[in-house]
Amino acid sequence: MTALTAHSISQLDAHWRAANYLAVGQIYLMGNPLLAEPLRPEHIKPRLLGHWGTSPGLNLVHTHLNRVIRERSLEALCVWGPGHGGPAVLANSWLEGTYGETYPDVSRDADGMAKLFRQFSFPGGVPSHVAPETPGSVHEGGELGYALAHAYGAAFDHPGLLVACVIGDGEAETGPLAASWHSNKFLDPVHDGAVLPILHLNGYKIANPTVLSRIPEDELDALLRGYGHDPLYVTGSDPAQVHHAMARAMDHALDRIALIQQEARTAGTDPGRKYARWPMIVLRTPKGWTGPAIVDGDPVEGTWRAHQVPLAGVRENPAHLRQLEDWLRSYRPEELFDADGRPTAQVLACVPDGEHRLGAVPYANGGRLLRPLPLPALDQHAVPVDKPGRTLHEPTRVLGRFLTQIMRDTAGRRDFRVVGPDETASNRLDDLYGATGKAWQGITEATDRNLSRDGRVMEILSEHVCQGWLEGYLLTGRHGLFSTYEAFAHIVDSMVGQHIKWLKTARELSWRAPIASLNYLLTSHVWRQDNNGFSHQDPGFVDHVLNKSPEVVRVYLPPDANTLLAVADHALRSRDQVNVIVAGKQPCFDWLPIDEARTHVTRGAGIWEWAGTDHGSREPDVVLACAGDVPTMEVLAAAALLREHLPSLAVRVVNVVDIARLMPHEEHPHGLTDPEYDALFTTDKPVIFAYHGYPWLIHRVAYRRTGHPQLHVRGYKESGTTTTPFDMVVRNDMDRYRLVMDVIDRVPGLAGRAEGLRQAMADQRIRHHAWIREHGTDLPEVADWSWPY
Amino acid sequence: MTALTAHSISQLDAHWRAANYLAVGQIYLMGNPLLAEPLRPEHIKPRLLGHWGTSPGLNLVHTHLNRVIRERSLEALCVWGPGHGGPAVLANSWLEGTYGETYPDVSRDADGMAKLFRQFSFPGGVPSHVAPETPGSVHEGGELGYALAHAYGAAFDHPGLLVACVIGDGEAETGPLAASWHSNKFLDPVHDGAVLPILHLNGYKIANPTVLSRIPEDELDALLRGYGHDPLYVTGSDPAQVHHAMARAMDHALDRIALIQQEARTAGTDPGRKYARWPMIVLRTPKGWTGPAIVDGDPVEGTWRAHQVPLAGVRENPAHLRQLEDWLRSYRPEELFDADGRPTAQVLACVPDGEHRLGAVPYANGGRLLRPLPLPALDQHAVPVDKPGRTLHEPTRVLGRFLTQIMRDTAGRRDFRVVGPDETASNRLDDLYGATGKAWQGITEATDRNLSRDGRVMEILSEHVCQGWLEGYLLTGRHGLFSTYEAFAHIVDSMVGQHIKWLKTARELSWRAPIASLNYLLTSHVWRQDNNGFSHQDPGFVDHVLNKSPEVVRVYLPPDANTLLAVADHALRSRDQVNVIVAGKQPCFDWLPIDEARTHVTRGAGIWEWAGTDHGSREPDVVLACAGDVPTMEVLAAAALLREHLPSLAVRVVNVVDIARLMPHEEHPHGLTDPEYDALFTTDKPVIFAYHGYPWLIHRVAYRRTGHPQLHVRGYKESGTTTTPFDMVVRNDMDRYRLVMDVIDRVPGLAGRAEGLRQAMADQRIRHHAWIREHGTDLPEVADWSWPY
Repeated sequence: MTALTAHSISQLDAHWRAANYLAVGQIYLMGNPLLAEPLRPEHIKPRLLGHWGTSPGLNLVHTHLNRVIRERSLEALCVWGPGHGGPAVLANSWLEGTYGETYPDVSRDADGMAKLFRQFSFPGGVPSHVAPETPGSVHEGGELGYALAHAYGAAFDHPGLLVACVIGDGEAETGPLAASWHSNKFLDPVHDGAVLPILHLNGYKIANPTVLSRIPEDELDALLRGYGHDPLYVTGSDPAQVHHAMARAMDHALDRIALIQQEARTAGTDPGRKYARWPMIVLRTPKGWTGPAIVDGDPVEGTWRAHQVPLAGVRENPAHLRQLEDWLRSYRPEELFDADGRPTAQVLACVPDGEHRLGAVPYANGGRLLRPLPLPALDQHAVPVDKPGRTLHEPTRVLGRFLTQIMRDTAGRRDFRVVGPDETASNRLDDLYGATGKAWQGITEATDRNLSRDGRVMEILSEHVCQGWLEGYLLTGRHGLFSTYEAFAHIVDSMVGQHIKWLKTARELSWRAPIASLNYLLTSHVWRQDNNGFSHQDPGFVDHVLNKSPEVVRVYLPPDANTLLAVADHALRSRDQVNVIVAGKQPCFDWLPIDEARTHVTRGAGIWEWAGTDHGSREPDVVLACAGDVPTMEVLAAAALLREHLPSLAVRVVNVVDIARLMPHEEHPHGLTDPEYDALFTTDKPVIFAYHGYPWLIHRVAYRRTGHPQLHVRGYKESGTTTTPFDMVVRNDMDRYRLVMDVIDRVPGLAGRAEGLRQAMADQRIRHHAWIREHGTDLPEVADWSWPY
Repeated sequence: MTALTAHSISQLDAHWRAANYLAVGQIYLMGNPLLAEPLRPEHIKPRLLGHWGTSPGLNLVHTHLNRVIRERSLEALCVWGPGHGGPAVLANSWLEGTYGETYPDVSRDADGMAKLFRQFSFPGGVPSHVAPETPGSVHEGGELGYALAHAYGAAFDHPGLLVACVIGDGEAETGPLAASWHSNKFLDPVHDGAVLPILHLNGYKIANPTVLSRIPEDELDALLRGYGHDPLYVTGSDPAQVHHAMARAMDHALDRIALIQQEARTAGTDPGRKYARWPMIVLRTPKGWTGPAIVDGDPVEGTWRAHQVPLAGVRENPAHLRQLEDWLRSYRPEELFDADGRPTAQVLACVPDGEHRLGAVPYANGGRLLRPLPLPALDQHAVPVDKPGRTLHEPTRVLGRFLTQIMRDTAGRRDFRVVGPDETASNRLDDLYGATGKAWQGITEATDRNLSRDGRVMEILSEHVCQGWLEGYLLTGRHGLFSTYEAFAHIVDSMVGQHIKWLKTARELSWRAPIASLNYLLTSHVWRQDNNGFSHQDPGFVDHVLNKSPEVVRVYLPPDANTLLAVADHALRSRDQVNVIVAGKQPCFDWLPIDEARTHVTRGAGIWEWAGTDHGSREPDVVLACAGDVPTMEVLAAAALLREHLPSLAVRVVNVVDIARLMPHEEHPHGLTDPEYDALFTTDKPVIFAYHGYPWLIHRVAYRRTGHPQLHVRGYKESGTTTTPFDMVVRNDMDRYRLVMDVIDRVPGLAGRAEGLRQAMADQRIRHHAWIREHGTDLPEVADWSWPY
């Protein structure tokens, strides 16, 4: 660590002033970018949008990251938690040249500066937040909470990478961020890169002081040490002093990181390796620093009033206009830009070269680094199926063996991880521990099993952190899977929504290379929460994601183990998507041999001829449709009852594995055309559809189909408790007996002919209720059922 | 604080052993509850379900809470974070007698004990978790994360109440819990009760060690001090020693709480009042303590293997059966229960009386304490509307004045709070600060505004904490409102799902008195996120809640300020519901005088005759329907265009304020009957429906209606960015011009007649695009539009 010269400080300050000038310009100006003439109202945008408050702090961090990256030839990326400070990050990208390289018409000159200013938050321009459109970004700063988890996700398995992460003191109040601090217990200094958290205490949110800026300093220090960090404090409002302090803190932090890594990498996997206390920086500077101190008599700089647009009435109010001009000129733009608007050498002195620039680092455009996964042949992991419905397997356990092989085959590359909230074993994926351990840097005890410092199974009891880690990992060019209890996927509803928005936008940007899809395995699902009951029963995550961009979202409900394998294989090859796979962990009948499973997944929906009695091309009397493992079993059991008791009834069985197939072809790339749909479901025959989740989802995707008026859906209707598996389907009217009754009620002319059968079915339901109350288990004929044909 | 005598300790231990015995019995036994004979396989349940691991710890806490409640005559309730330890809480409730008082057939004797055992996790019995069915509970321990926020919510404005809160070390890893620690900065020792967090480090989750149990002790201590607590440690596995230590810690903590409260209440609102460091207890005992140490050669007690059912094969495996019997007998049941199964005096010595018992405290059945809110007359706050569509008001600001009056009128009672994630002012509710401040116990500065120690507006940048606080507040008998940005309501999707499940179940329990509804104001909505763009645009929270129990859920989309007032008035009077109100904060046309608004809300949907041209009873040619403020404006603008250009077309305008009206009458208590629906929408005329959110929601609620094939819905289809308000509706094809084109396309015979108008509308859309790119603002004829008739 060397003391900075006055010359270096003046270079850093020039860069910072330039970035601040450009940030203010973006918020306000649509003309006169270099202040070549006095500001006039027509130079001002008609709608003033943007967030000034955090921008000078972000500019300071970017400036100082530039210096250390350049001096140390670092590979670094930065996660900008306060990404609503878009003007700051855009300003820096333009200064370092990556913006103009990505968008050549926004060149690094006066003309480009004018475009940079005008396009910001302007219709047809660029969003006000750091977004996929921003070079170097892997994190949209709109919905706060995920910055630190994203940073860790980016650092895992990138041992040469430094991930700086700016955390706003507003964001620090959120739950996901608060939980993410403990990510350092899962980061291996040998195989992973480093995360440098920079907690920016500018003191205020939109309208309130922040908690962490208003607790006693010793309490804050204790908190950060409690998180396992050694905090370095940079505090002040005098730029020169803050530059000095920030440079010192950066150097200190990077030296310390290098030392931790060196020690760990020398010690290797030696169990005596130290528990690392990573450095972090606490940056305490005024909100809206260098902006207007007072506006209309109220303090603005250093208060919440600086959050967005400090001077609101610039177009109409000459005093505000003059104050804006003074503010802009306070950065002395004439020293920072030449007559053509190009940044001077002094401004650019700290900027790194080429791919070392934060806007050009390939890690932030992860698709450029992505390699296809080595996927094992499915036949190696498939279960044999001689006859359908005779053997049972736990689908997720079969999947676990497939994932284990991938884990083994990526042992050297280290670009595949499985995350989950303490449920990997519960979800029957524990074969994975034959190939890798569970990441863990905490204290260990003799009774522990499968923990390891370099494990690539990640378990923390926070769905938010799991999701954030995986997003960061994928966005920086790797592969992964998130396994979780189905009901608790809702915990990350908002996160997946933001990730889908990111992918939707990124797909439209030619310079962003496709990344691996985010794959969910939702298991321990609604029908088999025997142990936990009502609180663990919610199949609605599928409904949530299907509201989002259809080009991004896929939902699969494989009915058995082999189909799950085929779906997983497909999902792990896909790019830029969110694949939601819902599959059970309890023993489930095997229906399809692997070749048929693969074909079935490719088709997404198909007639199971062996299960029906409509004999191929014959028009059926009724269609029994199903999606999901438990519904498939109930439909098959209903089909068997009908074949036994009403042998002349032509029943067609259709299984749907890819829910989007039901959607109109025009609305989803997987949607069936109307003739394709009609060929499966007919246009006029009753369709009794047993669906895994909320029944109205099927109506909402299929309402435009010709046969929709004949569609009758059974599914989960929020009736649950701790009870037996079959009682769950009875409670929700999706059991085999009810389905047979539905057929009798809906096939014209059947009601009279099958009155006895209908009564027998109703009696079975009554018998069921009596039986479980006495025995606590399901009816023997249900528990012991298998496909009889 | 006095040292406990050996006698007291033996009484506490007897109670604890009894509770442990009863917990094990619930998991395993369906006969022979008192071990009157050797255990045989037929005494064992066929399905072994339940969570043993946490139960002995919960029993210890309950036992020791009993002692201090009894000795100090406390009013206390306990939030059991590890509520999956249902057997423990049920055991204690049965011991103290509240279970038998609530459910008389489960009496405190051998017969009742047999029922207690058998019903647990048995079909038709009780859930395995602490649930609404559990006396004394306000918290279901299924989805982890919300215990501490619930505890604070319960303590606010209950100055005489102690809320103990057990936090499992698994739950402590979740984001919401991690954020909730800072709730102590919002708790006023004068007007609020006390929260005593008890962090239970039993070391393991389902299958992994926990983070907080495996960091260095000094780091844990720093963390808890960083949270603002003074931790007291109780560590051990020797019962006698732990009893002593726990009793000391409890006494110390309660003495300290009493001192903090006394000092603060003496000092009053003196600004020099101290920043309180509240005590908390860290309880470090083995998971599955007192259970089987080793099973089949593997360590179980003190490891994750004790999480659920430590002995799994009891029915089939004689060795396991013997081990279970030894385990049960290790509690010496013969000392704890008399021959009739009644707990002995020794066991009951620590149990408090009457409503001091944790299972009987009225705070945990909050409806018993609930008083109706004093609601101001709507006329006092309504805006005058002489003619529709001429004046503009910010609806949420008008609502804010109404809420302010309520805040004022509850200043003495203190049973109404407004929570929000730093958005109360942004959401234009800041008139509230005229009646109360924002709760804040942190350091203050001279520039601060509206912070106060006893404020009843609660702002923390965590939707999770806001939601948890409000749930706890409502469940203990008070009223409130949660205002938040619409898009970020998804952050609490899972929490509201759990609360709806709670309410659904609680409504079915006659002994639970109805509580105030959870009211959401979703604003800063999808159509007016000018500043923030795509990441802030998501109207899907409504879709999420509408999947849940219809008896609980209501969704309102008031089209103007007066309608919002009428909706809020209705919501604040309702009970046991979740009311989602979506309303804008931007200036919005006033359409209805307050009397009409009130009638409109009562009807939920109605024909706006003044806006249409179908003149009352005449059959219209087309129905223009709308739900939401922006859709209503676009529909009215389209209706005006049609009236001007196609005066002979009979247009009916229908506004829907209560979305459930569209659902079938059989499926939702607010659903219209078919004749009612048909009277509004016709059975065969084209209906062009402009809806606030995802358009398919309308199809999914209305698909059974006769006229459904003629229903054409426009809404948000995930097309957004930072742009102008009108550009948002154009991007999503919901603008007035597009609606007119839809009418022309769908009314039979109109296409030819109105070709010119259709072209003019298409041209206007093109003009719009050109205009915003040049000017950055909306077309003048849109920006200046008002209802012209």
